[in-house]
Amino acid sequence: MPAKFRIGKLAVIGVGLIGGSFAMALRKARAVGRVVGVGRTRRNLATALRLGIIDEIAVDAVTAVRDADFVLLGVPVGQMPEVMARIAPHVARHAVISDAGSTKQDVIASARRFLKDSLGRFVPAHPVAGTEMNGAGAAFATLYRGRNVILTPQAETSRTAVATVRRAWEACGARVFRLRPDEHDAIFAAVSHLPHVVAFALVGALARRRNARKLFAFSAGGLRDTVRIAGSSPEMWRDICISNRDALLEVLDAYMEELERARGAIAATDAATLERMFEAARAARARWLVARRS
Amino acid sequence: MPAKFRIGKLAVIGVGLIGGSFAMALRKARAVGRVVGVGRTRRNLATALRLGIIDEIAVDAVTAVRDADFVLLGVPVGQMPEVMARIAPHVARHAVISDAGSTKQDVIASARRFLKDSLGRFVPAHPVAGTEMNGAGAAFATLYRGRNVILTPQAETSRTAVATVRRAWEACGARVFRLRPDEHDAIFAAVSHLPHVVAFALVGALARRRNARKLFAFSAGGLRDTVRIAGSSPEMWRDICISNRDALLEVLDAYMEELERARGAIAATDAATLERMFEAARAARARWLVARRS
Repeated sequence: MPAKFRIGKLAVIGVGLIGGSFAMALRKARAVGRVVGVGRTRRNLATALRLGIIDEIAVDAVTAVRDADFVLLGVPVGQMPEVMARIAPHVARHAVISDAGSTKQDVIASARRFLKDSLGRFVPAHPVAGTEMNGAGAAFATLYRGRNVILTPQAETSRTAVATVRRAWEACGARVFRLRPDEHDAIFAAVSHLPHVVAFALVGALARRRNARKLFAFSAGGLRDTVRIAGSSPEMWRDICISNRDALLEVLDAYMEELERARGAIAATDAATLERMFEAARAARARWLVARRS
Repeated sequence: MPAKFRIGKLAVIGVGLIGGSFAMALRKARAVGRVVGVGRTRRNLATALRLGIIDEIAVDAVTAVRDADFVLLGVPVGQMPEVMARIAPHVARHAVISDAGSTKQDVIASARRFLKDSLGRFVPAHPVAGTEMNGAGAAFATLYRGRNVILTPQAETSRTAVATVRRAWEACGARVFRLRPDEHDAIFAAVSHLPHVVAFALVGALARRRNARKLFAFSAGGLRDTVRIAGSSPEMWRDICISNRDALLEVLDAYMEELERARGAIAATDAATLERMFEAARAARARWLVARRS
């Protein structure tokens, strides 16, 4: 039986829903000793401290990482270059660094440019979990239970570092997979980034209508669920869309073509085409749900 | 205190989620005596009978309505003309007729054309409730509790008939509102019909991708909620889209423009515009949720 997995000191850069829940899950699993947090707003860090998510607020990222054994970058992907550049000279030589960014090619490019000597101990990771809430106050210990975490290690990534990150996420209750970064980005452009753009655009379009207030007053469960993720952080999703631009544009165009097809069928009162499209979508969703249950 | 509201015999034409739940809710409220059901498939009617949703399967719509006090048309809106034409000569002279269609101008046009002498006792109605499931097996007695039902009576609609339909829906636990048919159709094009087209198109576009199976395997809660309503009946939604074509095309175009704006910002890596759009959407959703709670 392997020795119990344990991180001595964890530094969380960005103690939001994702970073905060990671710390809470590890603590619940007794897989972490001490947690230090650093972030942009004092108020959020105070919440994290009060909720016991972190043991200590570090004065800055440099101080936080200096004697940390594991550094989690929980910031929006647009901030990765700056954070990496700041911490690179100060990370302990044994420390493992990982991130929780929703895009991987862009984060890896930043790591190559800014992490220097620590690059081999950087394990690109994407926990596929979240809610439409954000901040430390939204964090909870079971967020990752049964969820997927994708690792996209590179040729130079240390196998020991990959094993450490895998065990950390498994301690959080997650299932860990590996993908190539480009494959990861194409998949999540389709199943995550596009749906967010769709939801933001749908609410945005309705909000622009003259009778927007009345519209929302008469809306029901269909709209509510369809746009739940439009409650997500605009800053985080702005970064993701820009970071994964090419893959996102490709699936966005495919979606807009599908919408055009539906529009054409409606305009032409072509009931047969419309039903065929809706039926194909319903069948695909049903197959997907069945596959997920098994 | 008014006399207790009670329907002697209810005829449900189309015993699906909507018509079945109406019958169940009335029975639970002890507001109905006998329920007869008629529909296209024997199997669904047998389910309705077994579940106690209906007391009797009528051989056809004509037989069902002959001595009914209340006739509920629970069929997809595309079938309204045919059903109305069939039952019109046979509905009792005191009977109230109502529907549960998601579009109103089109249903009213059918009523004017086919209901003849019964037109004054026809109360166009839209219960704003449902799930992505359908059929009698999906019906449940509390579907309408706290939900809105919109009535769109016309100049010739009898006030007694309107009062009866209002009391029936109130007995189901619903809140009853009145709107003009054109206003109704514009509102629901935006908050219900458009989101369904969006959800069907999103699943449809993903299902066409080469790696569709892998995509769905890695999808998470965001996509799942966004496309829940793509599980809805293709036939029903085909009919709604055609029936409410003009209002739907107008909001669909507004949505596609919003998507184009987002696409342009992503393509131009215009982070500021993208964040502004996402923030406006998030704020609108937040205001909407606050308004709904109060």
